[in-house]
Amino acid sequence: MSTDDIRTLSIVVIGDEILLGRVTDTNSGTISRVLGARGWETRGVRAVGDNASDIRAAIGAAMAEADLVITTGGLGPTRDDITKGVLMGIFGGKLVMDPSVTENIECFFAGRGLTLNELTRQQALVPDSCRVIQNTFGTAPVMWFEKDGKVLVAMPGVPFETRGMIEGAVADAVEAHFHPHGRFRRAEMTATGITESALAERLADYEDSLPAGTHLAYLPSPGIIVLRLDSAGTDAAAFKALAEHLRTLLGDNYSGEGAMSAAAIVLEVLRRRSMTLCAAESCTGGRVAAAVTAVAGCSDVFHGSIVAYANSAKRNLLGVSAESLASEGAVSETVVRQMAEGARRALGTDCAVATSGIAGPDGGTPQKPVGTVWIAAATPAGTCAQLLHLRGDREAIASGAAARALMLLMKQLTL
Amino acid sequence: MSTDDIRTLSIVVIGDEILLGRVTDTNSGTISRVLGARGWETRGVRAVGDNASDIRAAIGAAMAEADLVITTGGLGPTRDDITKGVLMGIFGGKLVMDPSVTENIECFFAGRGLTLNELTRQQALVPDSCRVIQNTFGTAPVMWFEKDGKVLVAMPGVPFETRGMIEGAVADAVEAHFHPHGRFRRAEMTATGITESALAERLADYEDSLPAGTHLAYLPSPGIIVLRLDSAGTDAAAFKALAEHLRTLLGDNYSGEGAMSAAAIVLEVLRRRSMTLCAAESCTGGRVAAAVTAVAGCSDVFHGSIVAYANSAKRNLLGVSAESLASEGAVSETVVRQMAEGARRALGTDCAVATSGIAGPDGGTPQKPVGTVWIAAATPAGTCAQLLHLRGDREAIASGAAARALMLLMKQLTL
Repeated sequence: MSTDDIRTLSIVVIGDEILLGRVTDTNSGTISRVLGARGWETRGVRAVGDNASDIRAAIGAAMAEADLVITTGGLGPTRDDITKGVLMGIFGGKLVMDPSVTENIECFFAGRGLTLNELTRQQALVPDSCRVIQNTFGTAPVMWFEKDGKVLVAMPGVPFETRGMIEGAVADAVEAHFHPHGRFRRAEMTATGITESALAERLADYEDSLPAGTHLAYLPSPGIIVLRLDSAGTDAAAFKALAEHLRTLLGDNYSGEGAMSAAAIVLEVLRRRSMTLCAAESCTGGRVAAAVTAVAGCSDVFHGSIVAYANSAKRNLLGVSAESLASEGAVSETVVRQMAEGARRALGTDCAVATSGIAGPDGGTPQKPVGTVWIAAATPAGTCAQLLHLRGDREAIASGAAARALMLLMKQLTL
Repeated sequence: MSTDDIRTLSIVVIGDEILLGRVTDTNSGTISRVLGARGWETRGVRAVGDNASDIRAAIGAAMAEADLVITTGGLGPTRDDITKGVLMGIFGGKLVMDPSVTENIECFFAGRGLTLNELTRQQALVPDSCRVIQNTFGTAPVMWFEKDGKVLVAMPGVPFETRGMIEGAVADAVEAHFHPHGRFRRAEMTATGITESALAERLADYEDSLPAGTHLAYLPSPGIIVLRLDSAGTDAAAFKALAEHLRTLLGDNYSGEGAMSAAAIVLEVLRRRSMTLCAAESCTGGRVAAAVTAVAGCSDVFHGSIVAYANSAKRNLLGVSAESLASEGAVSETVVRQMAEGARRALGTDCAVATSGIAGPDGGTPQKPVGTVWIAAATPAGTCAQLLHLRGDREAIASGAAARALMLLMKQLTL
């Protein structure tokens, strides 16, 4: 890929709350993913507090290392002055009231029946050295600055505003500015039910046949392989044909477009078979349901989950037998199988997954140390169970077990 | 607080996966919180890819701005050479096989019945210019370097290894090195059921009476106020007395030590009254259960949650009436009240919370736009419900509603 096609990006995250560790920055990851899919390489990410000198230094270093600098945060009604002041120091200009921003803010508040206060109105004050990109997800305007062939885009810090704007208007403006002729293209799709080596063998000829500037990458994770086809300079129709050919070669191993989560894959497999899903959760404490419901439109497949944390709940809601609980304990193959089958009955679905384990930090024994988790998957064809030994803290074990339970069901279905 | 007591920290996060946005960095937040509680101020966080020049530049800038630099990542078996090479470039020395690390790695693998491969064994190769702090949570050693009165600590990238080590051996080593005489002390506690202004009024005299170098900070969030007492130079006994006095002044508004989550607070309130809890979840899809089970030791209070995503599940598992679903819809006060009361019956608990709303992106209507959520809290004293209009994407709405439902129960209990 010629250097013309790869552009460099640097991100500056502004806000004391980040440095205090009170808020985890997810904006830089969102921006890297969205622009990475358009051929941008992130050179660095810097987080700084709400003070002018640190913001100035970070922006300076970022502009020195990249073609495009994106800042997030530091634009709230109360913190405006600092960041805007720094930007005017670099790009010049003076603050002017932008009527289009005022209108956007007024519509935004009117639409929600909220009363507009002066602090919020002040957000319409923008440096006349920038071009405003209207924030359709909030009130803080996105500001586009240019200097010496470099571009700085100042974005709000609210994660869903940043996501909405970077995926939409900001990405388009960046494309238009940096790739006026022919653009970088990427197709991603997810494959399952096949090992990386077997897949690489199947796709060997296809890879050899790819035109110059186009290449295929394998991004494997347990049970899932994401295929990424990147191309520079290929026209739309030719690239579409290359991606379509790849889908054909994947055949039954094709799970869907993009990089899919275990939950998204299971939902897709079940949807194609018009089957329904539910869960019975103990140690995962609702994380299976949370992973599944994180996928928009899951309701046609997913009916619900019974989080049976107490043994009484396992008995009363899932019909787990008191003897099994007494003789083998809640963390056992017998109990996890009964949980999966009980959930299937209780929620009237075709399939169910179940989890029962010791997430810690307490509750471990020499026989069943922390990280011991039994998972089960029940389908019309039968029920299978698997014993896991997971590492990590309470959260890592719980969410790891949730993902593994969904993968077990998929294996069971695609056998 | 004198500048002697405040020390500055800078963090360098190493790894292509961070810059690609495939992994979200949580290590820098963990380190900032843990050392912040010991009087350290984080000056900046830099994320760089797995290449020598970027790592060198980031470490150089970090060492220029802070007394202590902590790096995370770049130490995996496959990436060792790069980071260790850069560190030897800065601190000198040559790679030597450290027998104590070899022993740690062998014990680690033996304890898990895993076979040790050569790549992993290579992790015992450390620069002889550093002091090794044994990693009790994994195989990559923690390395302590000193130069010109500054300290660099190279830590692994695995979040739970970083958390375990920073809270333990690394924090202790840092204390011993930087605060040999008298240390910075902090006490945090959470207050609820009172407004910030009312609390500030009650604590005015206490704040005036605090000795020099000691001060009280208010960290308010909806329904919760975290009080942070920081002190430099006060001896242990005197500081203990100051914190105890604060607890006494909080009285019934004292919820517990540290900065507690809504779930942790509810669990504590219910535990003191020997009451039990369950949930009925629709739009939160298991996030109430996940928030509650994230608190270790919740099982004495929390029995479980019925995630009734489908209306059939609301009817069959929670006894929600078909008429109410038909006439008022699932997102209505009537239904959410029936859900809470139904969960209380089904799981046999004293209290229950329930949620039903539209998380989006689809499913909104002019009457019930995306973000419309009904929450309810049922106690032996009765059931209350509240209508929320939440902003944000699907995940923000779902987890926001979960926290608000738990806060509603707490308000109901502490009225």
